[in-house]
Amino acid sequence: MNILIIGGGGVIGQKLALALARTGQVDGKPITKLTLADVVMPGGIDAPFEVQTQTCDIADPASVAKTITADTDLIFLLAAIVSAHAEEDFDAGMKINLFGTYNVLERCRALGTTPMVLLTSSIAVYGGEAKDPLGDHTYPNPQTSYGMQKAVGELLINDYTRKGYIDGRAFRLPTISVRPGRPNRAASSFMSSILREPLNGQEAICPVAGDFLHYYLSPRLCVENLIKGAELNGSDIGMNRVMQMPGKVWSINQLITAMTTVAGPGPAKLIRWDPQPEIERIVTGWRWDIHAEKAKRLGLKADRSFEDNIRYYLEDDRPGAS
Amino acid sequence: MNILIIGGGGVIGQKLALALARTGQVDGKPITKLTLADVVMPGGIDAPFEVQTQTCDIADPASVAKTITADTDLIFLLAAIVSAHAEEDFDAGMKINLFGTYNVLERCRALGTTPMVLLTSSIAVYGGEAKDPLGDHTYPNPQTSYGMQKAVGELLINDYTRKGYIDGRAFRLPTISVRPGRPNRAASSFMSSILREPLNGQEAICPVAGDFLHYYLSPRLCVENLIKGAELNGSDIGMNRVMQMPGKVWSINQLITAMTTVAGPGPAKLIRWDPQPEIERIVTGWRWDIHAEKAKRLGLKADRSFEDNIRYYLEDDRPGAS
Repeated sequence: MNILIIGGGGVIGQKLALALARTGQVDGKPITKLTLADVVMPGGIDAPFEVQTQTCDIADPASVAKTITADTDLIFLLAAIVSAHAEEDFDAGMKINLFGTYNVLERCRALGTTPMVLLTSSIAVYGGEAKDPLGDHTYPNPQTSYGMQKAVGELLINDYTRKGYIDGRAFRLPTISVRPGRPNRAASSFMSSILREPLNGQEAICPVAGDFLHYYLSPRLCVENLIKGAELNGSDIGMNRVMQMPGKVWSINQLITAMTTVAGPGPAKLIRWDPQPEIERIVTGWRWDIHAEKAKRLGLKADRSFEDNIRYYLEDDRPGAS
Repeated sequence: MNILIIGGGGVIGQKLALALARTGQVDGKPITKLTLADVVMPGGIDAPFEVQTQTCDIADPASVAKTITADTDLIFLLAAIVSAHAEEDFDAGMKINLFGTYNVLERCRALGTTPMVLLTSSIAVYGGEAKDPLGDHTYPNPQTSYGMQKAVGELLINDYTRKGYIDGRAFRLPTISVRPGRPNRAASSFMSSILREPLNGQEAICPVAGDFLHYYLSPRLCVENLIKGAELNGSDIGMNRVMQMPGKVWSINQLITAMTTVAGPGPAKLIRWDPQPEIERIVTGWRWDIHAEKAKRLGLKADRSFEDNIRYYLEDDRPGAS
């Protein structure tokens, strides 16, 4: 099986590559080659099969044609202009998130080889007048251009699959926490940094109240779910190839309690509570009453507890972790 | 008010133009100019204001730029590659229905004049795993590429409106009956022809059973709803600028009974019942349990009875009608 990860340089792309290197197979079929493609040259990984790295700009059909070839069996399409960036720069978001997805699908159609294409969508498709509870059958009324572009990608995945051009599936990712790396300017940045920085012995600021609720998944289970998503039988998924990936709702207080349970009382003392009305205004508009009925029925999983999310960070990502 | 109808040569475009000529205003603002644009030169109409006709290919941004100008206040975007055609020719449907809509919206964004854009969507967005009853908040799971392209148009209308680039609204049209003109190769063609041809003294074939249910609206009320749709306050519509246009569910038997009530027993005798399994297979997959909650609340209307639909055809469209 010849696998391509577009967005292979990102946090999820790299973790997915490592997981594939460990398992060596997808759905019982041995992996023969893995290509990591990204807009800047991604890092390679060690694996028991051939690993290639390359640059690919999905906004450019010629670049896509070089990256996706007749022997590509499975494409993880993770590349995206993220929420805040796509909101600031409308053209960049359209170019990558909407037309980039279209370019990938058109290349698959032109090849006529019906590869599997797995797109990461987002809970950002929910919003506006969509009524709680939210899930697989909710009308997408996104309140960001990123969410709109992902919702368009979902429709394309469904129709290209229906027409027989690809074997598509799309998963709406919960907010990923604990996310490794550095804080960024996304409004959601604190949902990882209030845990990650204290676990690394550094201070962090919590800009919202302790009872703020949100819908989370660990990076480790996200990757497991993506692989499981590629192993599902299309006929079991049915006519809607889009589904919510399972997550769980927790309050900020529950996140911190889980950290204390796993790592002792020290880290929580490094959190400085500093309410920031601008961030609160944005994130309290986000939706959390989300249910992943179809994915759960098909065997995808949420974390059992947020203690697990903390342990995964310590095992997989804390600087110095093996 | 300077109004542009893209798709101005079609059945609904021409009827809309005539209705605007009669009222001379939209939302109390006098119409100063009406442009009818279509891919082939549309016919003009008599009106108490300036009427211009022109060709426009919405697949071509340069053509769109010539048609939409800084003084365009209101755009009715009716042009589309219809269902069966878009299913046969995927590229043509994408080019007009998806990228054509995008080109129109991008032109509005580039002008920076925030015109109103009213898109006709379709009940074709419903299907697949969407559960009855269907309506404003149903996840679009279309089973035609036409439906997918319309669902993408809805998402674009919402996001361009949210960003302040346009004042957008989109209406999912029911099946229009009695539709004037000639039968075509669409699977739905009989839903008008079993009435239109007999009312014109000609034979027609009914390929389905009399208890077949579907969701209908007359052309006259469709046009009234489109004008009303342009008169709604954006703030009354809310964050989801997409809504189902009201229609009503009737059986084939009810359509024919209504024809007999209005036009006497003669026309019904011209219907030949000839079950066609291929057409039955397609149309019995179509959805009819459709509800237009938001539009009804905002004052849009369905026909009171199918007798009205028959009368409208006789008054407005029967060859020789004034």
